[in-house]
Amino acid sequence: TGKDPTNANINPQTFLTSGIPLTFEITASSSQKSNRHCSRLISPKEPSTQTITAMASDPLLPEITAVTTLSSSDAKWVQLQKIDWKDQTGKPRIWEAASRKTRGSSGIDAVAIAPILLHPTRPASTLVILQYRPPVAATCVEFPAGLIDEGETPEAAAIRELREETGYEGTVVSISPTIVSDPGLTSAKMQHVVMEVQLKEGDEEPEQHLEDGEFIQRVVVPLDGLLEKLDVFASQGYAVDARLYNWAAGLDYARKRKW
Amino acid sequence: TGKDPTNANINPQTFLTSGIPLTFEITASSSQKSNRHCSRLISPKEPSTQTITAMASDPLLPEITAVTTLSSSDAKWVQLQKIDWKDQTGKPRIWEAASRKTRGSSGIDAVAIAPILLHPTRPASTLVILQYRPPVAATCVEFPAGLIDEGETPEAAAIRELREETGYEGTVVSISPTIVSDPGLTSAKMQHVVMEVQLKEGDEEPEQHLEDGEFIQRVVVPLDGLLEKLDVFASQGYAVDARLYNWAAGLDYARKRKW
Repeated sequence: TGKDPTNANINPQTFLTSGIPLTFEITASSSQKSNRHCSRLISPKEPSTQTITAMASDPLLPEITAVTTLSSSDAKWVQLQKIDWKDQTGKPRIWEAASRKTRGSSGIDAVAIAPILLHPTRPASTLVILQYRPPVAATCVEFPAGLIDEGETPEAAAIRELREETGYEGTVVSISPTIVSDPGLTSAKMQHVVMEVQLKEGDEEPEQHLEDGEFIQRVVVPLDGLLEKLDVFASQGYAVDARLYNWAAGLDYARKRKW
Repeated sequence: TGKDPTNANINPQTFLTSGIPLTFEITASSSQKSNRHCSRLISPKEPSTQTITAMASDPLLPEITAVTTLSSSDAKWVQLQKIDWKDQTGKPRIWEAASRKTRGSSGIDAVAIAPILLHPTRPASTLVILQYRPPVAATCVEFPAGLIDEGETPEAAAIRELREETGYEGTVVSISPTIVSDPGLTSAKMQHVVMEVQLKEGDEEPEQHLEDGEFIQRVVVPLDGLLEKLDVFASQGYAVDARLYNWAAGLDYARKRKW
């Protein structure tokens, strides 16, 4: 989400990547521990088939210092709207919604990528990212994703974002129609893109191409066990993205199919 | 989503249900056809294993008459917030986000239900709902869902919402941890609940328990073919919810598994 416009800012929570897969642990300093929302651990005891690409120096944990009400006119990236509409009976009604100010001519805000890593000897896996998200005051577990640039196709945005956020180069396998993220609350529209990354024996984990000030951490998770892994993340205080969770839940339901 | 507070309003797009499964077609009147976002057809030619419970009288199609910028102080259900925070390097940053004003003590806004209909002779199916959503100016295809009432458990909310929106009584099979719907943009938190509904031969489609002014239409879709069916909905101009779409995409990926 390097191009996330709500990014006058730029997302935090995480680490300069070394390109070398490491197991790691975030240790909260005492001052940061007081911020419960931001104290997150990946326990080294956790049974893990995952590869965590991590950092060298000890980063600070992000911290929210103030939350204030904002007017639509003062906001740069988002706005509130009052929608007057008539229902099926012709009755006038009102709805309140939030929207991004940044949508380009594509009419679609963003793409999210379900990456499938295929390797000769390792289990088929997906790749999720961890990044701090101020709106939920937590480090989130998400599919790689990002806003579509002006004039960019969703396919191109997906290939670019996967490369920037994870370093992996993949092939687009399928692309969804336009879907809506939370249509009772916002106008946000996106597309879901499945990308396969074919790895060879001995391939090293590629380098990310993060923007300055962008902190995104990658975690490789085998498809068999993804839902359980997301539950572990949640139990550790991470906030799991609903779209990723639902994909994993669908995968899991099919795996245990009763029909 | 009967309890959706952005419901001073109450959702539109659809029909008094008769309790009798019908195949149906929405015919847009000429004045409504001019509103392209709201003219939606379910073609009677579409090959369909679905059951659509529909209406008798010809309802109007919802129509948006005005969209105006809203201040947080004038909004009843939503607000904008400016979040001051420090990133991993200690640098002060700003994020802009939207949130609901309606969250209760549970700290979670809503539940969405993945209903699984099991029948002795029919294919295992899920149940999606169609309802007009002003924020995206379209009729959306979604899992049954709704806001959690004050003091209500997520399980109880799921059982209640499935009954209200679809008439079906089910058993909770699993419930997710708290997940976040669009954490770059909003604070929205929810839980994903899988519920199974065991049907018997000859069971009739139950009656919905909609609130006055609530228009929600049910569609039964076999699990095998769900993703394809969502693509058909999208091609007809419906907006498919991202969480539902991702669940279907996960199911589909597992069904065609290569690992």
